[in-house]
Amino acid sequence: MSITLKQAQQALTAAHEAAVQHNVKMNIAIVDSGANLVTFLRMDDAWLGSLDISIKKAKTARFFDMNTGEIGKLSQPGGPLYNIEHSNNGLITFPGGIPIRNNQGAVIGAIGVSGDTVENDHTVAQAGADAVQAVKE
Amino acid sequence: MSITLKQAQQALTAAHEAAVQHNVKMNIAIVDSGANLVTFLRMDDAWLGSLDISIKKAKTARFFDMNTGEIGKLSQPGGPLYNIEHSNNGLITFPGGIPIRNNQGAVIGAIGVSGDTVENDHTVAQAGADAVQAVKE
Amino acid sequence: MSITLKQAQQALTAAHEAAVQHNVKMNIAIVDSGANLVTFLRMDDAWLGSLDISIKKAKTARFFDMNTGEIGKLSQPGGPLYNIEHSNNGLITFPGGIPIRNNQGAVIGAIGVSGDTVENDHTVAQAGADAVQAVKE
Amino acid sequence: MSITLKQAQQALTAAHEAAVQHNVKMNIAIVDSGANLVTFLRMDDAWLGSLDISIKKAKTARFFDMNTGEIGKLSQPGGPLYNIEHSNNGLITFPGGIPIRNNQGAVIGAIGVSGDTVENDHTVAQAGADAVQAVKE
Repeated sequence: MSITLKQAQQALTAAHEAAVQHNVKMNIAIVDSGANLVTFLRMDDAWLGSLDISIKKAKTARFFDMNTGEIGKLSQPGGPLYNIEHSNNGLITFPGGIPIRNNQGAVIGAIGVSGDTVENDHTVAQAGADAVQAVKE
Repeated sequence: MSITLKQAQQALTAAHEAAVQHNVKMNIAIVDSGANLVTFLRMDDAWLGSLDISIKKAKTARFFDMNTGEIGKLSQPGGPLYNIEHSNNGLITFPGGIPIRNNQGAVIGAIGVSGDTVENDHTVAQAGADAVQAVKE
Repeated sequence: MSITLKQAQQALTAAHEAAVQHNVKMNIAIVDSGANLVTFLRMDDAWLGSLDISIKKAKTARFFDMNTGEIGKLSQPGGPLYNIEHSNNGLITFPGGIPIRNNQGAVIGAIGVSGDTVENDHTVAQAGADAVQAVKE
Repeated sequence: MSITLKQAQQALTAAHEAAVQHNVKMNIAIVDSGANLVTFLRMDDAWLGSLDISIKKAKTARFFDMNTGEIGKLSQPGGPLYNIEHSNNGLITFPGGIPIRNNQGAVIGAIGVSGDTVENDHTVAQAGADAVQAVKE
């Protein structure tokens, strides 16, 4: 089971609205269960370098079905997943990537957000993920 | 001068509507004047391999400010630009990529569409490009 | 708004002169607002490995509109942006990359310098960035 | 023996002047005997996709110490070097890349030019190569 375009658009729109509300300029990427891009948008004047980061966060969150920040705790020097970022053509393991689940809890994709502090990136990503999970299919 | 998110969304929506109307399943990518992605969508059940092709078509159209199919005429065996596709981390030089101009004719980005015949890819891309050029700024 | 060739040449010349003055051998790269190379020079006997580093520093500074050394403070183990260097085909996050602003303060590109200590790299880059900002347009 | 910065600047300036004279917008790259970039410039509004092509032309000309167009004759379907463009992270084998020789005829680097017809690319590159060979060392 994988996210539909309609669901990906809901996630994208909800995250975009959250970004506008928080007055932050974001890159927002949604991937499907195969970790392939479904929808994307970059807000005017958002950091250009965050384009790739937002996509990598979404992929990373789906690659391991957990929030990117959780992986980052394990990839520190001395940690069990030290430098896992070298795999998969580059992972991003700080906050801003979140798996997207349907209303039965199954992972159907992921969202990645980049453009501000990692706390704001995470908040905006959560708004996107929540929007999908809230919808009755 | 570069395409705004609002203009990129207009192009994406118009191209998506054209794809629905023609009953084809497309990947649609919009890049800015720096050839960097601004908006993207992949329709349900669209070819997965067309994801990268749609982005490369958009980049190629902006890289040379011409329709991708025009470059393909020049890059054939014996042609003046034979194997130009090896540059820029891979170009796509068959139809489906079109520069996006504002209503004064300046190139502000490009659209790339992939998922069906190259004729249909081009038709859908044109719908997206036309939607931006038609708008009074 | 993006740096012109004339401005990029001013930045390159000023940085080169600063390098000669400090008796250091540098690679110097200027990118535009799309993070694409505009001018470059490598001084005789400058480190060959610094060629790529200078370009990556310039791109990194433009990707996030801040000095590369600032990003490096945040990307340390335990920091919020740990291992961000894996994005964008490789970032360089130690000093030597600086955004270039016009005389109204808008970012129009960036300069990256590599070939000596990071302190000297930064000093030479600053000379280049200052040369552009000083000019009345 | 390799091209000096001073010689590379002479080649770059001569090629740039030829481009201005012919009213064409070019990307111009000079590499040394190790096929590594020494100087580069991109003229305002030159094709963005020609950035990479100009560098690849310069590298290709030095990789094989011949004009890029000569290699292109051999890399056609059925030819002895068919699809050689797949090597070295991408070659460009149509005209616009020329070895740079010193006034004793030794190859010390190469120039690559891209931004217009391959004939004009070649003409501008020749102006750059000639400027170095004409100088008594």
